Amino acid sequence: MVIILKQDAKQDEVNELLDWIKAQNVEPKTMIGESQRILGLIGNTQAVDIDAVTTFPAVESVRRIAEPYKLANRKFHPHDTVVDVSGYKIGGGNFQVIAGPCSVESEQQVISIAESVKKSGAHLLRGGAFKPRTSPYAFQGLKAEGIKYLLEAKKETGMPIVSELMSMEHIDLFNDVDVIQVGARNMQNFVMLRELGGCDKPILLKRGLANTLEELLMSAEYIMAGGNNNVILCERGIRSFDHATRNVLDLSAIPVLKRLTHLPVIVDPSHATGQSALVESMSLAAVAAGADGLIIEVHNNPKAALCDGAQSLDFPSFEKLMKKVNTLKACVDSLNS
Amino acid sequence: MVIILKQDAKQDEVNELLDWIKAQNVEPKTMIGESQRILGLIGNTQAVDIDAVTTFPAVESVRRIAEPYKLANRKFHPHDTVVDVSGYKIGGGNFQVIAGPCSVESEQQVISIAESVKKSGAHLLRGGAFKPRTSPYAFQGLKAEGIKYLLEAKKETGMPIVSELMSMEHIDLFNDVDVIQVGARNMQNFVMLRELGGCDKPILLKRGLANTLEELLMSAEYIMAGGNNNVILCERGIRSFDHATRNVLDLSAIPVLKRLTHLPVIVDPSHATGQSALVESMSLAAVAAGADGLIIEVHNNPKAALCDGAQSLDFPSFEKLMKKVNTLKACVDSLNS
Amino acid sequence: MVIILKQDAKQDEVNELLDWIKAQNVEPKTMIGESQRILGLIGNTQAVDIDAVTTFPAVESVRRIAEPYKLANRKFHPHDTVVDVSGYKIGGGNFQVIAGPCSVESEQQVISIAESVKKSGAHLLRGGAFKPRTSPYAFQGLKAEGIKYLLEAKKETGMPIVSELMSMEHIDLFNDVDVIQVGARNMQNFVMLRELGGCDKPILLKRGLANTLEELLMSAEYIMAGGNNNVILCERGIRSFDHATRNVLDLSAIPVLKRLTHLPVIVDPSHATGQSALVESMSLAAVAAGADGLIIEVHNNPKAALCDGAQSLDFPSFEKLMKKVNTLKACVDSLNS
Amino acid sequence: MVIILKQDAKQDEVNELLDWIKAQNVEPKTMIGESQRILGLIGNTQAVDIDAVTTFPAVESVRRIAEPYKLANRKFHPHDTVVDVSGYKIGGGNFQVIAGPCSVESEQQVISIAESVKKSGAHLLRGGAFKPRTSPYAFQGLKAEGIKYLLEAKKETGMPIVSELMSMEHIDLFNDVDVIQVGARNMQNFVMLRELGGCDKPILLKRGLANTLEELLMSAEYIMAGGNNNVILCERGIRSFDHATRNVLDLSAIPVLKRLTHLPVIVDPSHATGQSALVESMSLAAVAAGADGLIIEVHNNPKAALCDGAQSLDFPSFEKLMKKVNTLKACVDSLNS
Repeated sequence: MVIILKQDAKQDEVNELLDWIKAQNVEPKTMIGESQRILGLIGNTQAVDIDAVTTFPAVESVRRIAEPYKLANRKFHPHDTVVDVSGYKIGGGNFQVIAGPCSVESEQQVISIAESVKKSGAHLLRGGAFKPRTSPYAFQGLKAEGIKYLLEAKKETGMPIVSELMSMEHIDLFNDVDVIQVGARNMQNFVMLRELGGCDKPILLKRGLANTLEELLMSAEYIMAGGNNNVILCERGIRSFDHATRNVLDLSAIPVLKRLTHLPVIVDPSHATGQSALVESMSLAAVAAGADGLIIEVHNNPKAALCDGAQSLDFPSFEKLMKKVNTLKACVDSLNS
Repeated sequence: MVIILKQDAKQDEVNELLDWIKAQNVEPKTMIGESQRILGLIGNTQAVDIDAVTTFPAVESVRRIAEPYKLANRKFHPHDTVVDVSGYKIGGGNFQVIAGPCSVESEQQVISIAESVKKSGAHLLRGGAFKPRTSPYAFQGLKAEGIKYLLEAKKETGMPIVSELMSMEHIDLFNDVDVIQVGARNMQNFVMLRELGGCDKPILLKRGLANTLEELLMSAEYIMAGGNNNVILCERGIRSFDHATRNVLDLSAIPVLKRLTHLPVIVDPSHATGQSALVESMSLAAVAAGADGLIIEVHNNPKAALCDGAQSLDFPSFEKLMKKVNTLKACVDSLNS
Repeated sequence: MVIILKQDAKQDEVNELLDWIKAQNVEPKTMIGESQRILGLIGNTQAVDIDAVTTFPAVESVRRIAEPYKLANRKFHPHDTVVDVSGYKIGGGNFQVIAGPCSVESEQQVISIAESVKKSGAHLLRGGAFKPRTSPYAFQGLKAEGIKYLLEAKKETGMPIVSELMSMEHIDLFNDVDVIQVGARNMQNFVMLRELGGCDKPILLKRGLANTLEELLMSAEYIMAGGNNNVILCERGIRSFDHATRNVLDLSAIPVLKRLTHLPVIVDPSHATGQSALVESMSLAAVAAGADGLIIEVHNNPKAALCDGAQSLDFPSFEKLMKKVNTLKACVDSLNS
Repeated sequence: MVIILKQDAKQDEVNELLDWIKAQNVEPKTMIGESQRILGLIGNTQAVDIDAVTTFPAVESVRRIAEPYKLANRKFHPHDTVVDVSGYKIGGGNFQVIAGPCSVESEQQVISIAESVKKSGAHLLRGGAFKPRTSPYAFQGLKAEGIKYLLEAKKETGMPIVSELMSMEHIDLFNDVDVIQVGARNMQNFVMLRELGGCDKPILLKRGLANTLEELLMSAEYIMAGGNNNVILCERGIRSFDHATRNVLDLSAIPVLKRLTHLPVIVDPSHATGQSALVESMSLAAVAAGADGLIIEVHNNPKAALCDGAQSLDFPSFEKLMKKVNTLKACVDSLNS
């Protein structure tokens, strides 16, 4: 932590600050420049409240140097985390495609989609039973019934299930769900994150609409601080001033996250773009950028989808995409070998 | 709803769309322009899924014309909603200042702050018992104990209490809290919003960091759809590219919201700016822009605050602010009379 | 400047960096923390290229501590700059309203508007002769003829003229214009800024759509480095994800800029909101926030305006606004006296 | 164009609007819905000023349906534009890499870089002689001398030259430059765009920091309206709230632009990320997303670069990148054949 002192700070104001710093068990080192005085704090500065520092009259500004996350930090855990979902591995060189409908609509629908995406090469099945919708009047998902249908599809196809949890009050319904998804709007639902730290399932943590990569890693840290290290990060587009696409897919998040953390990083091109016509090109770009996986919306009949039909691929489009993704992934792997 | 057809849409593709539209019980009206064909949908288009429309091959794009919210819409409810908190009214010309610490730290602390802000003219007491913190290692609030101290302060001073609820699992602790605050990070926690619709307390709904005013109103609609019309909206700053302030306080949200909705609108200059030195000027600006109230962080000793000390006012600053706010409010009222 | 070294930097890599630093005539001071090594640079670090530092293998990251602007910096020039426009002063407690049409349309139009806004209390006349328009097919201004009409209005009313310069090739036409406006889209047209530094007229410098306050001050620095210290800064709204208003008016820019710089700061509520119905409330809010002036679009017949009619006030609305602004300004002044 | 009328608009207010519309030579068609009345305008609505419409008392809001650009619009020009730079083609399936230093520093430097990037497979040489720098105190480029060195390098290597023009006053120096670059900060310098429309050289038009894709196309339209159809669009990152990278590279801009326009689209991963370590992965992602080219900063000694060393690749890194890009491009081409 580096503290910049006000040019005109009086000595007793500086002393008040120095006393407080020493009481935090860190050691201040002073540097005196031409027009500025700087204090560098040495020691375990994680415990020092940056907000508290700024309240001292002597202080002009404060900057934290060390990342505020530890368990998610690659510095302290240099090896890639590999998340194992019923034998399907994500991270550390392992790549998976998760596919399925935005929302589960019927048992038959989800089974037919599962069979189709499996045939095309997806190994995990996604499907929403609880749907976060902006409007209270929109379809909110089949809830318990939706989970039941997903588990039927799992039984039929052997595919592990990924589904979004919107509230801890539904957690008991997720006993046989394989990966719990935390949606973008719940990325900073800290009560939920903390409780998921006590669970032994992999968590798919989506980046919030306007959250920084550091905040995403802090939310992962919440889960990991509870003992659950199986966190998969997901870039799914951020808000911008341009509404040509629903969100802006931030693919540089992949190499940046991989430098900062050991956790796997996957990409959701369906929600990022909101347009099925853009899903293929953004999937290929994500693979080229080094993603550990993709999560893609597929629907048997996008026109009749109860939710997000506009961004869903139909079966032939998904089959075509998978062929391209597999070919490109092999090429990308060969570049790095 | 207006549907723009693709220039090269074939007639059977258009017919497929027209059949589907009629099945939704709305009537399509066609307009043929020089280089475009447009369909206008007449009838109750709230029931028409805009996403579904875009999946038809004939469709280039779709635009919704009507606002998607009804209960919060001033068009259907032209008179200002006045929220009454134990006799203190907010909205419809009534202005209130809510003040208190970011987080409750001790019984003595919260009582001394309550007494001080009351003396300065604030009528409602704010205080956080459950604190949403980016870091799992930061102070998370005193929780049940914090609520207890707030209620002690209420007993001592008679001030109604405003406090943030982070999860429905804590709702029973809020029985004697007067206003339940939904924080920015929970603005789209739809499960919580829906459940708060069944509660009979006023809800202070904060705008999310990167949420549009329409999304804020849709979240209010969630609460109101459950039967609770006592919603107070709160502008508290939005994310931008410039980090000179923590967030950018969007004061034009006040007149825009007042045109769109009948609900009261208050402003939180403390969280918006993150700097105590900016709170006074932004409070005055909010009053001039027509806010129905302010929510301001005040601390007996900002330097020692366990949370957000940098944005908290001390007692003399708050007293000075209240004098200015009251004088300016009287002036603004005289301008509009 | 503070340099954070990589945890695993080798000693010869660190030495290479230290040698380079010493060659820059600044002195490195080393601080060794628990998990990090930091170098603080002492001396005139303005000359050190922050980009160059990051290319050294030993470097993890670099942060500049000192502001990169000097002439515009309040630290080195504590007293408010007062810009004098033909006797009308802006800054240092002096407040001015600049009003007039978005674009000059005819001699009669601009004279009638000038007379009306003068009667309502505005002291400076704005009017666009060269108009930056997104579309090449939109009305681009009357150009030389427009300047001529403005000067006629100046002769008739005695009001000093403020008009936008879009290219230095037109500078000769601006000989009798009193204040040269640099538009938001030219805020980083560095060639133009540098040349305006050699001119002896006040410059009204508008903040770019997505420029930080620091970048705004750096652009002011360009002008001042050429010897022209008469720079008036103008906040006119920034881009955000919400299109409820054209831009988001960032009123906290006023107190922040006043802390960072000695230059006057005015506000353009017309371009910020893009809606005439919001101009009055945002003008009042700007006054309450401490603005040194306002620049407001007024048109004799907004419906028939060739440009930006939607945000222009008609005469009665502007007269009403001026009364309120004057009353509020007197109130705000009394608060601070 | 679609006009939504106010619910409570009086008939004479509506008539006033209808009369005005008819005077614009377009035909209004009325649709009457449950709670709304809508006017659809049929005819050449490009001539109708959307701002003027909103000033009528009867109008609630207006939405333009047709794109405001014609020459750049794929609807009217379905075939890909191929820009030919001295025999090197860009667009329509043709892919080029442009490489070179951020700024020209010496004749020897630019020649050695040109020879190296040519050997690695780049066909065009970039180099800045006029440098837009945020600070007036930073190195501003070698100007005329820099252009001279670039032309020497062209003579030595036969590589066509791409260089940025910052002001029309320097245009004569660019007689032998092959592609004129318009930088992000000048994307809406409309005077310059219009004048470049009269020039016969290809223009590399960079997207502004906070400009929409529609605005980018409108700026291309300015150039094309002057008769110059050789416009190459360049995505180079946009501003966001997260400063983990300098900008956010918006790769979905590639497929979206290719749908909207026939112009070629290239990507600048160096400026987008600001970090040399991210250039390779973002280059590969751009290729996978369908870019028609890349523009990449390469420096003989990034540590000693006078500008933007942090984002420059050294020779071995660029050689490695080119091998990967070529392999990946071949793979991507095979996917689409």
